[in-house]
Amino acid sequence: MSAEELWGHQTQVAMKHFAIGGETFPREFIRALGLVKHCAALANVDCLQLEKQIGLAIAEASLAVINGEHDQQFPITIWQSGSGTQTHMNANEVIANLATQRLNSTIQVHPNDHCNMGQSTNDSFSTAMHIATLEQIQYQLLPALIQMQQVMAEHSKQWQSIIKIGRTHLQDATPLTLGQQFSAYATQLQNNIDRLKQATAELYAIPQGGTAVGTGLNSSAKFAENFARQLSEYTDLPFTASDNRLSLQAAHDGLVNVSGVLNTLAVSLNKIAADTRLLGSGPRCGIGELHLPENEPGSSIMPGKVNPTQCESMLMVCAQVMGNHLTITFAGAQGQLELNTYKPLMIYSLLQSIRLLKDVINSFTEYCLRGLEPDRPQIEAFLNNSLMLVTVLSPVIGYDNASLIAQQAHSHGTTLREEAVRSGLITAVAFDELIQPENMLGPR
Amino acid sequence: MSAEELWGHQTQVAMKHFAIGGETFPREFIRALGLVKHCAALANVDCLQLEKQIGLAIAEASLAVINGEHDQQFPITIWQSGSGTQTHMNANEVIANLATQRLNSTIQVHPNDHCNMGQSTNDSFSTAMHIATLEQIQYQLLPALIQMQQVMAEHSKQWQSIIKIGRTHLQDATPLTLGQQFSAYATQLQNNIDRLKQATAELYAIPQGGTAVGTGLNSSAKFAENFARQLSEYTDLPFTASDNRLSLQAAHDGLVNVSGVLNTLAVSLNKIAADTRLLGSGPRCGIGELHLPENEPGSSIMPGKVNPTQCESMLMVCAQVMGNHLTITFAGAQGQLELNTYKPLMIYSLLQSIRLLKDVINSFTEYCLRGLEPDRPQIEAFLNNSLMLVTVLSPVIGYDNASLIAQQAHSHGTTLREEAVRSGLITAVAFDELIQPENMLGPR
Amino acid sequence: MSAEELWGHQTQVAMKHFAIGGETFPREFIRALGLVKHCAALANVDCLQLEKQIGLAIAEASLAVINGEHDQQFPITIWQSGSGTQTHMNANEVIANLATQRLNSTIQVHPNDHCNMGQSTNDSFSTAMHIATLEQIQYQLLPALIQMQQVMAEHSKQWQSIIKIGRTHLQDATPLTLGQQFSAYATQLQNNIDRLKQATAELYAIPQGGTAVGTGLNSSAKFAENFARQLSEYTDLPFTASDNRLSLQAAHDGLVNVSGVLNTLAVSLNKIAADTRLLGSGPRCGIGELHLPENEPGSSIMPGKVNPTQCESMLMVCAQVMGNHLTITFAGAQGQLELNTYKPLMIYSLLQSIRLLKDVINSFTEYCLRGLEPDRPQIEAFLNNSLMLVTVLSPVIGYDNASLIAQQAHSHGTTLREEAVRSGLITAVAFDELIQPENMLGPR
Amino acid sequence: MSAEELWGHQTQVAMKHFAIGGETFPREFIRALGLVKHCAALANVDCLQLEKQIGLAIAEASLAVINGEHDQQFPITIWQSGSGTQTHMNANEVIANLATQRLNSTIQVHPNDHCNMGQSTNDSFSTAMHIATLEQIQYQLLPALIQMQQVMAEHSKQWQSIIKIGRTHLQDATPLTLGQQFSAYATQLQNNIDRLKQATAELYAIPQGGTAVGTGLNSSAKFAENFARQLSEYTDLPFTASDNRLSLQAAHDGLVNVSGVLNTLAVSLNKIAADTRLLGSGPRCGIGELHLPENEPGSSIMPGKVNPTQCESMLMVCAQVMGNHLTITFAGAQGQLELNTYKPLMIYSLLQSIRLLKDVINSFTEYCLRGLEPDRPQIEAFLNNSLMLVTVLSPVIGYDNASLIAQQAHSHGTTLREEAVRSGLITAVAFDELIQPENMLGPR
Repeated sequence: MSAEELWGHQTQVAMKHFAIGGETFPREFIRALGLVKHCAALANVDCLQLEKQIGLAIAEASLAVINGEHDQQFPITIWQSGSGTQTHMNANEVIANLATQRLNSTIQVHPNDHCNMGQSTNDSFSTAMHIATLEQIQYQLLPALIQMQQVMAEHSKQWQSIIKIGRTHLQDATPLTLGQQFSAYATQLQNNIDRLKQATAELYAIPQGGTAVGTGLNSSAKFAENFARQLSEYTDLPFTASDNRLSLQAAHDGLVNVSGVLNTLAVSLNKIAADTRLLGSGPRCGIGELHLPENEPGSSIMPGKVNPTQCESMLMVCAQVMGNHLTITFAGAQGQLELNTYKPLMIYSLLQSIRLLKDVINSFTEYCLRGLEPDRPQIEAFLNNSLMLVTVLSPVIGYDNASLIAQQAHSHGTTLREEAVRSGLITAVAFDELIQPENMLGPR
Repeated sequence: MSAEELWGHQTQVAMKHFAIGGETFPREFIRALGLVKHCAALANVDCLQLEKQIGLAIAEASLAVINGEHDQQFPITIWQSGSGTQTHMNANEVIANLATQRLNSTIQVHPNDHCNMGQSTNDSFSTAMHIATLEQIQYQLLPALIQMQQVMAEHSKQWQSIIKIGRTHLQDATPLTLGQQFSAYATQLQNNIDRLKQATAELYAIPQGGTAVGTGLNSSAKFAENFARQLSEYTDLPFTASDNRLSLQAAHDGLVNVSGVLNTLAVSLNKIAADTRLLGSGPRCGIGELHLPENEPGSSIMPGKVNPTQCESMLMVCAQVMGNHLTITFAGAQGQLELNTYKPLMIYSLLQSIRLLKDVINSFTEYCLRGLEPDRPQIEAFLNNSLMLVTVLSPVIGYDNASLIAQQAHSHGTTLREEAVRSGLITAVAFDELIQPENMLGPR
Repeated sequence: MSAEELWGHQTQVAMKHFAIGGETFPREFIRALGLVKHCAALANVDCLQLEKQIGLAIAEASLAVINGEHDQQFPITIWQSGSGTQTHMNANEVIANLATQRLNSTIQVHPNDHCNMGQSTNDSFSTAMHIATLEQIQYQLLPALIQMQQVMAEHSKQWQSIIKIGRTHLQDATPLTLGQQFSAYATQLQNNIDRLKQATAELYAIPQGGTAVGTGLNSSAKFAENFARQLSEYTDLPFTASDNRLSLQAAHDGLVNVSGVLNTLAVSLNKIAADTRLLGSGPRCGIGELHLPENEPGSSIMPGKVNPTQCESMLMVCAQVMGNHLTITFAGAQGQLELNTYKPLMIYSLLQSIRLLKDVINSFTEYCLRGLEPDRPQIEAFLNNSLMLVTVLSPVIGYDNASLIAQQAHSHGTTLREEAVRSGLITAVAFDELIQPENMLGPR
Repeated sequence: MSAEELWGHQTQVAMKHFAIGGETFPREFIRALGLVKHCAALANVDCLQLEKQIGLAIAEASLAVINGEHDQQFPITIWQSGSGTQTHMNANEVIANLATQRLNSTIQVHPNDHCNMGQSTNDSFSTAMHIATLEQIQYQLLPALIQMQQVMAEHSKQWQSIIKIGRTHLQDATPLTLGQQFSAYATQLQNNIDRLKQATAELYAIPQGGTAVGTGLNSSAKFAENFARQLSEYTDLPFTASDNRLSLQAAHDGLVNVSGVLNTLAVSLNKIAADTRLLGSGPRCGIGELHLPENEPGSSIMPGKVNPTQCESMLMVCAQVMGNHLTITFAGAQGQLELNTYKPLMIYSLLQSIRLLKDVINSFTEYCLRGLEPDRPQIEAFLNNSLMLVTVLSPVIGYDNASLIAQQAHSHGTTLREEAVRSGLITAVAFDELIQPENMLGPR
């Protein structure tokens, strides 16, 4: 059956008028549209608006759409009406045809009168946006992020006794442990997990039941609550009927805000990936404090070259997420009166960001993070060579004297110890007692 | 005294090397730096690190900086070291001089050894970033936003019985009340208030005590907690010592995230201002459903012209906040290893966004929102003229028949009633019973 | 043959390590990679580096890739090494296999030693980026844009005598003709055509021949010029060998700049689409000065509704292009030392922007712009009703007096004529002589 | 005189209604407004519209504004009407008062009727935007950029014989000279110079003479050309009267495009500054191939620390320019019908970008670039140690064999020479002949 066309006239016309680009809705959004149609049919039956036989046929037909059996029946790209009407009608048409087939064509199920009963694109498409976003964040992105955070926390524990030189402004600074360094990354990730949970919470309130402009005209009084209950049961997520549907159809502030949190996550990942690349630079002419897994040949011309490719793919995803955030921001700001008409673009960009972040986090964790190995000799060599251990002398001999010692060592190419002793400000014994990196990792 | 230069050598040198632009730190950040120095001196005295006489002199000198008595002593622009070292040393130098004066020069207070005891730019400047952001959001932006939300909610109540035509895609749609329309704006604003409160919460955990790389080297063990307590008392805000200072000096994800929430607020305000401008368009050749207060002459050439200038200034602020968000995002993503070196730019941009949002919200509320007046005859004329009231016929005669009636009326320039009756699908009596806008404002 | 896998080990390994997203390289980039391999083989033969038999086999195999016969052999997404090494080796592997087949396996053509002779990913992939960008802009985007400009210019001529009210700040202003209004759009488009031609010119200088770091190690002295000549012949575009290849591999400023010009184009199109939507608002409760073609049903719930969907799809594309520009900007800024490692993302985003702009321009021109119809009665009604015709009185009676007349008419709901005569400042005769919209369309 | 208020009622009212932020127009824009008023007065006299005595008084008064004698008379921030009407009227009022004083109050010069004769904010403010942009780019930014380019080119020549290791993906690659590396930077800068010259060219066509909506109502037929001639003489820049003024008042695409070119410049500078910081990392635990000038103490806690502060201030400016570009893009896209109403913000942001780029380029050139010193021992040590010299063996022994040798050396910690000889694929003599970095800097 999947070979033949199940869509109807409106879909066909849309393909002509919107022959733009190749970006179609992803699986996860088709699923969400199917969920809307499924739950709406059941709710309409419960509210005694829709004949049971027809309602159940629609609900069953929708299940097939939910489960991905008809994804090829959604050929329209996202570059259509800003409300998503064409793809919404595409769903209505496909499901009406499937439902009619289920009823052996004894009843002609109508895309508008039956499949779309008590619904408008404006509330249904918006609700599907919430559903897809929540399912993908809760069930895909968060688990990936939590796993990455755990690996980071394990490294932090595992490497808590490896003392290394710190670097601020890319210049040598006071020491810390490699474990401390990774604890900062683990903390960044944990904070992102918390922010994501917080920011997505408001999306559980959905506009379904608002119909055309959010007032609910033509829907049944109990429809919205019934729908939310059906949806919660199916998805195991705590959806509720919003008490201001107008604001969720005319604007998508909540989705813009979630994009903002994904943008923050990209900011964190950008630093983690760039730091990893920098610490792994070399193998002989860089920092080289970390060894990255050697996954594949790095160059088509330089034999034996290995590159930090997992870092690079993560950095590219971060740039994409930031660009998507701008697109979503611009789109979210330009709604007019009772409707925001950038819906297809907003949800496409948001789902792309979520998918890419999830995938790249999994890939980076698996093929880079887990396999990181500290190069202990290199780490130790740097530590012993650094001039910034002088900082610990400051409270004893004053900042100005300590500065002088560091500068002398720097310009003479000597050690701190030599210059400190030569200065007469501190004895060699006192120096050796003070300058012990393992005592320089926390407050006194 | 304020006429003479209180700064020292490092400030002087900085003015030479960073003669870039004219953007200096705003009052609210100088205050925050003063707060850091004040609380650090008291905490150092409490921790028995700093002689009481010196500590109190520093604390008192800092009060003068906090209160704005020496703002002209901070001449360096934000285009300096990415850590803010020059402005931080500027504060240390000014306060050291002021403290020395208080001690009648009996003791020479040292900018580093005394004023900066147990501190680094990296923890102190970062902490000041948190302080200034929180003070400005809690005490300036949120009150302004709450007031705007209240005026919006009042309008919503006040205009709950004015029925008007809805518009989706800028095309006539089903009706709603003006009160419902404003309830959507009120809801958007309330959600922004909630998001701001949530997103700022994590900033109360501050890195002070982390010194150079976040480990706390050279600070006293009890310093961080003592500092946080002093700060909380002074500001009446619940600051705490962070348990991962490294992550707050190496990155500023929390501030990026707050900027993301301000970006969402800008998205909401953009829609509100643009809608207001559109509804107020005219006076004779536009939509004209709202009258905006006539604050000032609008044109240097067109006599008697009045323009929606409060909307326009708000729209410009929104564009600025979005641009600042990109700057902050880019800056936040580019930290390296133990330090993010975009600190001056990040806090400058963030405080600018907060200040502008606060000011423009107050201005818009006062000089536009409060004075809005509905043009009832215009609103009624549109309502009665609209073809989209046909929607209510759909459940009775079906979507396809209802479409036909609307299309006929549109192409013939007739009324829905005429075409409905002519179609034979519905009687005039039934039509009049169904098509009553006051019954089209909610579910059945 | 196309069913079997022609790729080799490196491609296979890449699919495992980079299971990220679904964004693969578009046809136009695969073609460009094929062009690089084709011309390089011929150039290597000419330079006597590569055995003729092998070289020709590679060149012929590349033709099949150029022509799209093997697109399904490029399964790796763009989220790979930032140099594009995996997709570049994918091309080398596929072409080596195809060439080996052509030689009946008498010779084993090597992906690196033969297909990649005198080449590196770093120069080859970068060159392919230039090729794809130029082909798509010259042969796809510019023709679409030129056509749109022509239709706009035709409307401008066609409607040069329709006088209408101008609007500034969305408030009534002095009149202009509909033709003048469309002349502004035509001018904007023409300027974009000129900018695009200018900005793309620098891309004809290509880095091919730079190999690994831009110096040209392992390539033949005459290779670069020979390659550029082959490429020019094939594409009919004036490619040249760059005299600073390092700068074209380490950075992609020229591509960032072209993205900037596409961003400007998006800014222009955004205004054109939004203006069209606004002028077409209604049908009964909006501005309604233009009728837009009625392409498809606009609503799943509101029968007979027609929406400005071509405007909306154009507005969404504009938001996407702006987001892509940020992504490209961020990516372009983050190159390090001898290589920018955001190449796959940069070219993907740039080609997406070009494709979408081209498609949406064609769609908008065909399904909206061409079919626009002015609503003359509506245009005339607004014109006659406007108060801003008062402007023409200013030079005669002064700005202040003219203001007063306009304000009186506004507050009394009267006409300008009534108030002007009542003021005693001007006679009815003089008024009628001055206030003639057809005399208000240019300088005195 | 400068102490008293010269502004009038409209300015006073604006200060009340727009108490938003603190961002006032910079000197260079006040100057441009003065230029408009000066040239308009002279042109009006020439066109016999304005009494000579009054016209010359206005022209002279404008000179004082041009020269900065009355900057404190412009107190209104940019957050006003989106047309800039308040600041434009501010200029009209101040100049009217100054002109009246010059005429000893024998004639009351009127801000609208005289100072603004034949002008509207919409053409005048827009023209001032072009003037300020062009003056600042031509006379400030371009000279700074040209100087930086020259210093870069000098370094390129000076260091043409210092061979160093190349790095791609931050991993060791084939060698190049330090001179070659700097030639890439010099080329990038030269391209930016060329782009700036190209992109600014269109701005010489100005809308002055368009008055309210671009049609020129109320201006004299010869006014526009006469104005452009006056302006060209005063500024020594080739201004012309635009032949489509409507497009320059309704949109500012040309300015958006110039911002795009500044964005490209920021992209280039970002790489240069970040590369310099990376090559200067250390002093003992980084790459350390370059010594940066030691301008000031780098840390308030770490004695003797020196940081790459000029790089950091440049990087911050780049982030600001990118943010401004987004603001300008968003603002430029949102014009409606006959007017773009983001003018104050657009010109403020654009002039800020120009000013900051100019200043930071000068500062970086003077305090960092000029003083760069290569660390030859460090450069040489890296070069000799690198494994990527193996690339030159590829054409001789094949890519696969060469890979094996590099991998062996990497995993054994041995030299290429040892492993190459051990492999039996090449003799020590042949190895020594091939592996000579000085022969690896270009094509064969």
